[in-house]
Amino acid sequence: MNDPAAATPLNSPNDIEGPSDELQIFSEVCKHARGTAVLADVEALLGWDEQTMLPPAAAGYRGEQAAALASIVHERWIDPAFGDKLARLAEGPLAEGDDPDAAATIRLLRYDRDCRTRMPSRLVEELASTGVEAQQAWVVARRDSDWALLEPWLQRIFALKREQAACRRPDLEPYDALLDEYEPGGRAAAIAETFSSLREGLVSLLAQLRGGPRSPSDRPVRRRLPREVQEALVREVAGRIGFDFDRGRLDTTAHPFCTTIGPDDCRITTRWDEDFFPTSFFGVLHEAGHGLYEQGLRQSWHGLPPGEAASLGIHESQSRLWENLVGRSPAFWRWCLPLLRKASGGFADVSLEEMHEAMLVVRPSMIRVEADEVTYNLHVMLRFDLERAMVQGELPVADLPAAWNERCERDFGLRPSNAAEGVLQDIHWSAGLVGYFPTYTLGNLYAAQLMAAVQREQPGLEKAIAEGDFRSLLDWLRQRVHARGRLLESGPLVAAATGEAPTADWLLESLALRYGPAHGVEPA
Amino acid sequence: MNDPAAATPLNSPNDIEGPSDELQIFSEVCKHARGTAVLADVEALLGWDEQTMLPPAAAGYRGEQAAALASIVHERWIDPAFGDKLARLAEGPLAEGDDPDAAATIRLLRYDRDCRTRMPSRLVEELASTGVEAQQAWVVARRDSDWALLEPWLQRIFALKREQAACRRPDLEPYDALLDEYEPGGRAAAIAETFSSLREGLVSLLAQLRGGPRSPSDRPVRRRLPREVQEALVREVAGRIGFDFDRGRLDTTAHPFCTTIGPDDCRITTRWDEDFFPTSFFGVLHEAGHGLYEQGLRQSWHGLPPGEAASLGIHESQSRLWENLVGRSPAFWRWCLPLLRKASGGFADVSLEEMHEAMLVVRPSMIRVEADEVTYNLHVMLRFDLERAMVQGELPVADLPAAWNERCERDFGLRPSNAAEGVLQDIHWSAGLVGYFPTYTLGNLYAAQLMAAVQREQPGLEKAIAEGDFRSLLDWLRQRVHARGRLLESGPLVAAATGEAPTADWLLESLALRYGPAHGVEPA
Repeated sequence: MNDPAAATPLNSPNDIEGPSDELQIFSEVCKHARGTAVLADVEALLGWDEQTMLPPAAAGYRGEQAAALASIVHERWIDPAFGDKLARLAEGPLAEGDDPDAAATIRLLRYDRDCRTRMPSRLVEELASTGVEAQQAWVVARRDSDWALLEPWLQRIFALKREQAACRRPDLEPYDALLDEYEPGGRAAAIAETFSSLREGLVSLLAQLRGGPRSPSDRPVRRRLPREVQEALVREVAGRIGFDFDRGRLDTTAHPFCTTIGPDDCRITTRWDEDFFPTSFFGVLHEAGHGLYEQGLRQSWHGLPPGEAASLGIHESQSRLWENLVGRSPAFWRWCLPLLRKASGGFADVSLEEMHEAMLVVRPSMIRVEADEVTYNLHVMLRFDLERAMVQGELPVADLPAAWNERCERDFGLRPSNAAEGVLQDIHWSAGLVGYFPTYTLGNLYAAQLMAAVQREQPGLEKAIAEGDFRSLLDWLRQRVHARGRLLESGPLVAAATGEAPTADWLLESLALRYGPAHGVEPA
Repeated sequence: MNDPAAATPLNSPNDIEGPSDELQIFSEVCKHARGTAVLADVEALLGWDEQTMLPPAAAGYRGEQAAALASIVHERWIDPAFGDKLARLAEGPLAEGDDPDAAATIRLLRYDRDCRTRMPSRLVEELASTGVEAQQAWVVARRDSDWALLEPWLQRIFALKREQAACRRPDLEPYDALLDEYEPGGRAAAIAETFSSLREGLVSLLAQLRGGPRSPSDRPVRRRLPREVQEALVREVAGRIGFDFDRGRLDTTAHPFCTTIGPDDCRITTRWDEDFFPTSFFGVLHEAGHGLYEQGLRQSWHGLPPGEAASLGIHESQSRLWENLVGRSPAFWRWCLPLLRKASGGFADVSLEEMHEAMLVVRPSMIRVEADEVTYNLHVMLRFDLERAMVQGELPVADLPAAWNERCERDFGLRPSNAAEGVLQDIHWSAGLVGYFPTYTLGNLYAAQLMAAVQREQPGLEKAIAEGDFRSLLDWLRQRVHARGRLLESGPLVAAATGEAPTADWLLESLALRYGPAHGVEPA
């Protein structure tokens, strides 16, 4: 195990001090929660296997298996004896004591349990089963570009999500109640404000870049590279940035993801395009970034809040930091281009500058997952605004395609010619993931702000990266982010790590600094 | 799904007829048992993943996950309400009614539950945890050829197994109580008698073959064949004999196995030797034979006795039938040699006769898993006699290595030079599998008897096999064996399928007929 931070509490649940009867209850509570995590991790294995290994005919039964586990996990969460113990601890000395791990454990287990307990079992099951069926409908709808197929499912999903919002956090506006599950403490009004200033900056930057005298080309990387060569390369790079293959795996899927099946079992996936290796290359950097976070959580707290990720936004900050701020930097390619040449036996004709600039092509498109780093956040904002309006009842689901197409044309100057390249492109809403999209852009903001802070504190970082030495960067992230688990919400966590509350400024600066020169544009 | 037999009941649990209150209880009982199977299948996935995918550092946590599932499954089995319903059904009309599926479901669920309920939870957990630790000790002990490392674990295992025997079936002699779990209805005294006549025949055949004027050589197959070529070949062959890859998978492991994760999810594994393709070739035929059985069980009864395998002996009969009686036959190679030549671009220098005879080398060795078809059963008998003596307290565990070596020398004319090639070669006892070995030889007996019966009934079978058409053989097995599930115990099942009670004669005849000519020996 990597030694996390000096500045961060390192103890395990067994090291907490306090009155012995309180400790006894605390230990029982931790044991119960950890036992629940053991089973939730089995659920994660079912999901991983479904995406990577499952024989085609076995999907239906896999649904039964997942539902059975989900129900057992839910029953363990709402177990009344567990609730009583948490309530007692919340009144006791550990909840307000000096140990932040103990206090956070009590507070957050209680919070999570309360949110779950307020959800009727009927709603939990309906959300699960509707999500599975709606995803299947989405697959067909996207394939046939047939909005009418999906519409009734989305009607149902948004109705259920509104019901979930009312149960989960009746004190919040519905969208916030949903968002809060993915980004604890996140609120739509504040996000909208941040997004608005980011949007302004992005639109202006985009105009500058598009009007610049130069235009980077990705032609140097549009050449055949066999899958085996790509795989050897990305495994070497993932290992070098710190992903521990003794505690994880890399496999192939249609839709890449990272999942955790245990404290020493973090699995990432990718897809391969033999004519465009950046697909797997940046995909693996991205997922390995998620993986580094999971592998950097304190193992002794696995299954308890101090050993959990702070939020999806923070998670995405780790993936995007490695994918974009490291992976698309000139220093990185100084180290990586020789590696690529050696692995492929080619690319001798491509200069370092050409290679680096090939990663900086900006080209507005209609598809989020193919978007470049500059326009990506506009895709997220589109979804954020539309899903928020739907949850608030301001936009009827039936009107979604029209609203989507209109916004798409306004933001990208492109109008989807069919639903598949428009409103049907993402699986999220069909899967019941509402309030999830903004965490992508929050992750980009956090990543830029974190990277700027490390760069200030580590003047030698660029040189180290150019030598393929990522240890000081990873150590910094381990200390400032990973080892803190869920002790702080995203905002305070970023503030504690960087010395300032989250802002869009660092992302805009980072984009201008990296994309400007490649387009012949002077930073403002 | 393949249509099973006309002669076999096809109904699902929902088609049973009877008084409505009985049907209601029957339906609840089936639902409960099926729910248990859903979770037991998740346990199977944990095991499969452990053998094929698990990152090295994650083994400990996987143990926790498996134990958590095992405990949930056990609790479901011993659930008192489930027991009460079974007791009531056992007194009712369905238990003695016309429907054999309903009657078997009630009788066998009750039997299985009674056996489990008599096991104290403490013993269940101790067996599970001791088995995991003893297997780890075995890995080290075998690596270092250090019997002393394993001995205390085997002492513990055999003590626990005796305790298990006394709980599980206090009315039986201890070895039978253990054997009964793998081979329901199997009794050591009867097996010993069968084995004794088999032994006599084998020793005599072996002497004949070894003294014969000719001696087949496996030199033609000792040549390099890349793993990819082997994999393409075995996938084609497995698919052709009927293994359905839409309902299953093939992966790589150190120790090949077949496991079932759901009614449409049967997974087989193999290992690869690039200098000796028969390792993977016959390994996959063997495991695919197990897989055909699992895929041939009636899906509508999955998780209930009519949809379960009859016994490990019957299971092994299916794997050995495809591996040896089909795979080592001249007809099979008439079809397969051209396939091998096409896949490999080689073997043009090897005649059909040479290829077929290369599969018929008989060479006494000390390692069971490397043994040829003729000497294999002597390995099994050695283990059967020794484990039975240990369970009965006639052979102290401490004296096992000496007894092993002595018997090995007597049976094979070879004395192990160390414990790794002697008493430490198999994992079974460390894993708590006592009473398991004889099912291997029972499988060989059943396979030969079944094959002789198909051949009698299907005069065109050899021709079909030579054309790569295995459908009539598989259909026969589906009807006579697979679709019958656990309705009959092994003996009656073989008798019903072949018209005669199991005997060693068919195996001896089959070996003499196939191995004799290759050694220049006239069948007696």
